[in-house]
Amino acid sequence: MDPTRLMLRLYFGPVMFGPGKADLLEAIAAEGSISAAGRRMGMSYKRAWSLVEAMNAGFTEPLVDSARGGAHGGGAHLTAAGETVLAQYRALEGKLRDAGAAEIKAIGALIRHDMSDEK
Amino acid sequence: MDPTRLMLRLYFGPVMFGPGKADLLEAIAAEGSISAAGRRMGMSYKRAWSLVEAMNAGFTEPLVDSARGGAHGGGAHLTAAGETVLAQYRALEGKLRDAGAAEIKAIGALIRHDMSDEK
Repeated sequence: MDPTRLMLRLYFGPVMFGPGKADLLEAIAAEGSISAAGRRMGMSYKRAWSLVEAMNAGFTEPLVDSARGGAHGGGAHLTAAGETVLAQYRALEGKLRDAGAAEIKAIGALIRHDMSDEK
Repeated sequence: MDPTRLMLRLYFGPVMFGPGKADLLEAIAAEGSISAAGRRMGMSYKRAWSLVEAMNAGFTEPLVDSARGGAHGGGAHLTAAGETVLAQYRALEGKLRDAGAAEIKAIGALIRHDMSDEK
């Protein structure tokens, strides 16, 4: 049985980067707006902004460049640093699936298949 | 900057295996007891048992063989399946660090180093 999902979080001291932030960066790149990205992810405007602020504070350069303002919020886009972090994180997920295929398969082979309604 | 920690969770449908369960299996193997393993991890007896029950239910074979009972709890040890899952998970973490070294380094190079008191 293949994993439905691999969830990978990187902790650099107090700075964490993981799948939620990666998905948000991707949504910002696609939507051109933090609020629209948040909506796409079913996330409040406040939550989306808070994640962006955490990312911008945790890295040497902001990952998202944005103009806060107006009823619709200002536009937003990924900086070069944001594009790098997102691309490297997605590449890392790919490396994990590739290099770890045998281990993932070995664990998956022992998973019960009749658990669909249970936790 | 190297990550302090990589946290990897595998979701197989409703069955999750991640670092907490791996650490608990390791502690059970070392302590020979679920309650002692829980204490070592600063986890309640109830929580440790609940994690063991979830693991035993989620895999085709139990990962932990135990005799519940007595004031001190019965002894416990990893089954062959438990040893396999733990070993494959640790190997997977190693593969991630090795195969993903360049990506981890690229992300780490952009982390701010003066964030030690911040979230």
